[in-house]
Amino acid sequence: MSELRRDPVLGRWVIISTERAGRPTDFEPAKPRPPGGFCAFCPGNEDKTPPEILALREPGTAPNTEGWRIRVVSNKYPALAIEGELNKKARGIYDIMNGVGAHEVFIESSDHKKTISTISSSNMRELMWAYRQRLIDLEGDERLKYILIFRNAGVAAGASLSHPHSQLIATPIVPKRITEELSGAQAYLDFKDRCVFCDMIDEELDFGKRIVENNEHFVGFTPFAARFPFEMWILPRKHQANFHNLTDEQMPFLADCLQNCIKRLDTALEFPPYNYILHTSPCNTDREYHFHWHIEILPRLTHVAGFEWGSGFYVNPTSPENSAEILREVELGERNNGETDAYE
Amino acid sequence: MSELRRDPVLGRWVIISTERAGRPTDFEPAKPRPPGGFCAFCPGNEDKTPPEILALREPGTAPNTEGWRIRVVSNKYPALAIEGELNKKARGIYDIMNGVGAHEVFIESSDHKKTISTISSSNMRELMWAYRQRLIDLEGDERLKYILIFRNAGVAAGASLSHPHSQLIATPIVPKRITEELSGAQAYLDFKDRCVFCDMIDEELDFGKRIVENNEHFVGFTPFAARFPFEMWILPRKHQANFHNLTDEQMPFLADCLQNCIKRLDTALEFPPYNYILHTSPCNTDREYHFHWHIEILPRLTHVAGFEWGSGFYVNPTSPENSAEILREVELGERNNGETDAYE
Repeated sequence: MSELRRDPVLGRWVIISTERAGRPTDFEPAKPRPPGGFCAFCPGNEDKTPPEILALREPGTAPNTEGWRIRVVSNKYPALAIEGELNKKARGIYDIMNGVGAHEVFIESSDHKKTISTISSSNMRELMWAYRQRLIDLEGDERLKYILIFRNAGVAAGASLSHPHSQLIATPIVPKRITEELSGAQAYLDFKDRCVFCDMIDEELDFGKRIVENNEHFVGFTPFAARFPFEMWILPRKHQANFHNLTDEQMPFLADCLQNCIKRLDTALEFPPYNYILHTSPCNTDREYHFHWHIEILPRLTHVAGFEWGSGFYVNPTSPENSAEILREVELGERNNGETDAYE
Repeated sequence: MSELRRDPVLGRWVIISTERAGRPTDFEPAKPRPPGGFCAFCPGNEDKTPPEILALREPGTAPNTEGWRIRVVSNKYPALAIEGELNKKARGIYDIMNGVGAHEVFIESSDHKKTISTISSSNMRELMWAYRQRLIDLEGDERLKYILIFRNAGVAAGASLSHPHSQLIATPIVPKRITEELSGAQAYLDFKDRCVFCDMIDEELDFGKRIVENNEHFVGFTPFAARFPFEMWILPRKHQANFHNLTDEQMPFLADCLQNCIKRLDTALEFPPYNYILHTSPCNTDREYHFHWHIEILPRLTHVAGFEWGSGFYVNPTSPENSAEILREVELGERNNGETDAYE
């Protein structure tokens, strides 16, 4: 089992996978899998992954056989394992606990060659549904304090498999980044008596020059203090703390907003590496009053270097206003405001 | 002039370089300069860089001509500019200020092909001296709140030029990462009435399995909660808050400890990309009681992916104990405990 270790200065937790060998030769750069090579996520290879936790399938097909549109399985090489107790303890002056949590994979399409910008709208909606479903289910496990859903696209963004997929890692502590967002939002609420994210949405809609996508329920924009060129955030227009409260009415609008943002990025920059992450409020907390869930899309075009690592400052060579203009200029073809299946 | 923008939730500052165009085609992957191509940092090209701020030269040679061993110049494309006022103001609900600060380059050797692990010991000592000298000098500018010295080695670590160099960026605010380290160290002091870094040194020397280098004045070890495989921290054994207080007696021992750590890394992993960063206390503060300056060496062997970006958690596939063992196994040849010139 992996081990969670706490940095005694910053309180940052690190997952140490003590089982993997980690000899110097393990760090050769990852190579893309040759075309036509074996893929455990492709239909027909269902027995090559752990059994499915959730799947959207054609009527009458059996679990772990072909006929699925989306499949959720445990990660075969999990960063955190679902079995076991935390067993928090000291090691010398330091703090450790067992690597208990969950690590799941959302196989987003049965088609190896699809990606977020090319899957069908209905597929995209089902993916949003699957995200919500896994969040709701895992919140029942009281050992888990936070559930992070994320997507790595491209080798430079950390993807090791090219079949379209996103992931979920549930942790037994609220991650530092989330604690910081919660504290920041709380401080703003204390000072202004308003949600900082709601204020941001008003400001962005008013200013306009950073807006990329905008529909009845969601807005996608390049944030004022963007760390990266073409960074985008997606927020529900109506205040909502936790993604598990996403309504069936909102769902197609989210699918559409996220897919269009990625489609703009993929078109403007020819399928660049990127990550997206979903920030929702921690498990089983009632923070409706100040947190506001959102998705951050982080294109990986620039190298994070010593200055960024050392300071937490970022140097962004493209203003968010410039990025938004370029992204807005992209012709999406037939637009799809949560109602039609334009990409099929 | 670039602009400093503050994220309204996290309080994180971002430097937006509004002058650079940032069209999508600007983000082609950086290519290493072809061998024999022009290098502005090589001797004979002194007029191709901004004038030197500091240089270690042969007696009788004129500034900005050949005959130097180390040269410090302003960065030709500075992230922050030394002229101007901060002019802090609101923009809508957000906060901005002018990109005032300093951005300097330490050209570490006149030999284009050298690197930290192959320059002479005396060269390495002079580099430490130059770091200290620039820190002391810039602390005289009251607009500056923090001075970060860092090194990017290899394209994947953000280096855009191969001639051996490190950099310095001075910022008009104390960076988030430093504030966090100060708060963490303060919290530990409040609870234990001791310096957390001093406790860490005792623990590491006692435990032994994470030690990589150890001399009379400095210790280099893989930290307990290392984010990255082969990450190392170097600390002065005696409590010292600010790098500008580094004594002439300590200097060769620091040069030796840092150079040996990098030499071990370069040998074990065949010159991997890495960053190192110097964390010292903020400008003109008297924090001797709880901060303890240190150097963090961050090899860039793994991709930072969505989970890390989204959570601030890190997944490290190699335990620090395993990393330290591999680094210790490296044969350094004739050892150099701050007293001889083994690499010349």
